[in-house]
Amino acid sequence: MSYQQLEAHQRQIDRLQHLFAICGWDQATMMPEGGSQARAEAMAELEVLLHAKKTAPEVGDWIAAAEGESLSAAQQANLNEIRRHWQDARLLPADLVEALSLAGSRCEHAWRRQRQENDWAGFAPNLGEVVRLSRDVARLRAEALEMRPYDAMLALYEPGMSVVKLDQVFGDLANWLPGLITEVSERQRGEAVLTPVGPFPTEQQKALGLEVMSLIGFDFNHGRLDVSSHPFCGGVPTDVRMTTRYNEEEFVSSLMGIIHETGHARYEQGLPREWLGQPAGEARSMAIHESQSLFCEMQLGHHPAFLSLIAPRIRAHFGEQPALSAANLARLYNRVEPGLIRVDADEVTYPAHVILRYELERDLIEGRIEVADIPELWDAKMQQWLGLRTAGNYRDGCMQDIHWTDGSFGYFPSYTLGAMTAAQLRFALERDLGEMGSVIEAGRLPALFAWLSAKIWQHASLLPTDELLTQATGETLSPRWLRRHLEQRYVGK
Amino acid sequence: MSYQQLEAHQRQIDRLQHLFAICGWDQATMMPEGGSQARAEAMAELEVLLHAKKTAPEVGDWIAAAEGESLSAAQQANLNEIRRHWQDARLLPADLVEALSLAGSRCEHAWRRQRQENDWAGFAPNLGEVVRLSRDVARLRAEALEMRPYDAMLALYEPGMSVVKLDQVFGDLANWLPGLITEVSERQRGEAVLTPVGPFPTEQQKALGLEVMSLIGFDFNHGRLDVSSHPFCGGVPTDVRMTTRYNEEEFVSSLMGIIHETGHARYEQGLPREWLGQPAGEARSMAIHESQSLFCEMQLGHHPAFLSLIAPRIRAHFGEQPALSAANLARLYNRVEPGLIRVDADEVTYPAHVILRYELERDLIEGRIEVADIPELWDAKMQQWLGLRTAGNYRDGCMQDIHWTDGSFGYFPSYTLGAMTAAQLRFALERDLGEMGSVIEAGRLPALFAWLSAKIWQHASLLPTDELLTQATGETLSPRWLRRHLEQRYVGK
Ligand SMILES: [Zn+2]
Ligand SMILES: [Zn+2]
Repeated sequence: MSYQQLEAHQRQIDRLQHLFAICGWDQATMMPEGGSQARAEAMAELEVLLHAKKTAPEVGDWIAAAEGESLSAAQQANLNEIRRHWQDARLLPADLVEALSLAGSRCEHAWRRQRQENDWAGFAPNLGEVVRLSRDVARLRAEALEMRPYDAMLALYEPGMSVVKLDQVFGDLANWLPGLITEVSERQRGEAVLTPVGPFPTEQQKALGLEVMSLIGFDFNHGRLDVSSHPFCGGVPTDVRMTTRYNEEEFVSSLMGIIHETGHARYEQGLPREWLGQPAGEARSMAIHESQSLFCEMQLGHHPAFLSLIAPRIRAHFGEQPALSAANLARLYNRVEPGLIRVDADEVTYPAHVILRYELERDLIEGRIEVADIPELWDAKMQQWLGLRTAGNYRDGCMQDIHWTDGSFGYFPSYTLGAMTAAQLRFALERDLGEMGSVIEAGRLPALFAWLSAKIWQHASLLPTDELLTQATGETLSPRWLRRHLEQRYVGK
Repeated sequence: MSYQQLEAHQRQIDRLQHLFAICGWDQATMMPEGGSQARAEAMAELEVLLHAKKTAPEVGDWIAAAEGESLSAAQQANLNEIRRHWQDARLLPADLVEALSLAGSRCEHAWRRQRQENDWAGFAPNLGEVVRLSRDVARLRAEALEMRPYDAMLALYEPGMSVVKLDQVFGDLANWLPGLITEVSERQRGEAVLTPVGPFPTEQQKALGLEVMSLIGFDFNHGRLDVSSHPFCGGVPTDVRMTTRYNEEEFVSSLMGIIHETGHARYEQGLPREWLGQPAGEARSMAIHESQSLFCEMQLGHHPAFLSLIAPRIRAHFGEQPALSAANLARLYNRVEPGLIRVDADEVTYPAHVILRYELERDLIEGRIEVADIPELWDAKMQQWLGLRTAGNYRDGCMQDIHWTDGSFGYFPSYTLGAMTAAQLRFALERDLGEMGSVIEAGRLPALFAWLSAKIWQHASLLPTDELLTQATGETLSPRWLRRHLEQRYVGK
């Protein structure tokens, strides 16, 4: 059967991608500086080889033949995903794939130092090369998929998403979010929040992080925690490689970063074992992935009941101080304050950072702006959304993120789509299990994760995003649940 | 030009082998248990792919065409190495490779428990299967290469080595080594050696190890040190991954293990950059590799002047105690004592262990003895060489090593060839730079390594072993330098 040949072929691809994932993790966590050139070449070589495998002529024949075969619903879903990946792969010529991989590695590698040195002049030409190649990608994809260029990039991360839909949901946010930010800022103005006093030794932070990972169910037999300058969750489902970074002057952001990445990790570890190695067994999309990490971080991690649960563990590692009371931690973690750095942003101002990047990358990919225009536009949009200036401060402005360095244009919207999804999931979960606070207080975290497993993880890519969300929550994506969540938590509506 | 096509093809192979090396390192140092199944499958997939690439039909055509092209001497050397690797890869049918791989895994896996349980009866049939398949390998290689079977196995590790040469050099050792062992044992009988008293915390051992690695020139921009249960030196030349293991009850063996692996690492790091990725740019052979690690360990690391140099550092980490004086460390590290276990042997008795295994595996591969004969022969040879009985003690006798379990017949001689080469290099180096002790005392370690680089590292596989050694030392391999070294160090001749 052709379908069986496709499955065998996908297993081969998956095995080679396994090696790519582990070497990518190593590159970010373990590799010494001097190894970067050879590593970039080795990974580009495998990427070319994978590309050749994915686009082998017989794959199209197998797909065509499999369409006439008698398949189960799950096999049919797998065939759909195989077809989608195959189309994605064959749209691009091998030399473009290789050029983008090399330019991306070079740009990202140099960015690590350039960011520290606020070196926009050094960074801009590297980014320019990545943008130039990414526009080629977008154009080729757009022509073949009959979409506008940015939609064709979105489809890499969010199949079914589009500028039209994004403008709807982000437009909805634009109507109420600025007012909410102002309202919350005013409410919190008089609030006394104590800043925990360090130092917080790395070893203690790591031990605390590992404890909290255990508490929320990370499986250490199938993964580990390491350090990288930009935290991520990589590896493979049976060996998930999570990273964080430590700052001995404060533990707050590293701890919540660990909780966030653990959300990603549990999704990966929770994918259905019987479908591992097949496209239908992969995480559904970046927004769904982010919904799992943001569920862990925002819906669970920032919940006062959860902070009450972990406050004693925090004090056990860092000693008693008033700033480490559960009440103060809740104030600290739910403090809303416009800031320059996306990854440090609270959940109320976070969408502003994403919409800013979305608007820039959409126009960058579609040729309406150039790399040289970014700093000025960044500054203008930061002023407009959050009232902050970034002129001359590239490090905390347009050079703060890693995403554009390797050409991941179309990715940023996933963060806010994920936040919306997480909020929508939370209200659906509460209908089934009761209010989050009481679930946490009753020690029912396993029930909470079992719900996520049943509603999201176990379905992997066996359903399209809209269907996945509908079976989990009763409706497709709606921004009103994020609004309800934020208003409930921050202005007590 | 066909030669250029071969170079491009080799670069591809090298890049994929890079990923294999890093994932292999990860498997031994980082991977959680639950990731092992998927990793094994992923690495096997790449191995199959590499084999297909190495034996692709066009390679033979390119080689034939390149032989008629005008090449530099270095290109010619590279072509010779390419041809050798290509022949090695295509000589064996895939089903024999797979059968041996399976039998080897089975034998090795069962051996781990059988060794503990001294279970020769359980082990012998598994080893018998590995021997049977290895004889097939040896026969096929022998027919194609027109060599005797054991020479065809040696060629996998030591191109140019043969039973005739081994019988010469090992025969020479047999004339003087047993007498020397007796003489040294008698001399050391009354010597008081203090055992350092622990515990020796892992963190301190690691810090000391890193310091000593720096002292002997390990380039941390192109490598790192980690922990694995079986120490090794892996990775790639621009990113060498060294491992060790720590035992908090004693630091002596871990420290010297680090020095040994640093010798391997410096060779890899010192290979000529312009030939990286090509067969001519690889380390020459297993014996030459071992000569570099043994030079570091035995010629340098066990030298009283070197131990004087590092003794203050050792005491800085572990505190003052009489056992950590330079003089006692020299007695400790240069203690000669016949023992059952090869990996714990001192440099005087070590060759006895190797010659014993060489004689057995040579006769085993060439069908003059059978697996059932091993224990009795082992016992007889251990009595003859070291005066020790192993009858009934399989665990510390013929079941102590891992090498035969996966069919690595032909590898053992490299250890003692490496020790001889290291001694020969030392006396050549002393003719150029002066006596080792004064080189060390004058702080001229950089000059010492520059000499090794000029004589060995920079030549990679650009010369055959005999030529390499001749240009470095003025002659081909001779056991008299090892004799001189051992007599000088141990009986003061
Ligand atoms: Zn995330
Ligand atoms: Zn070695």
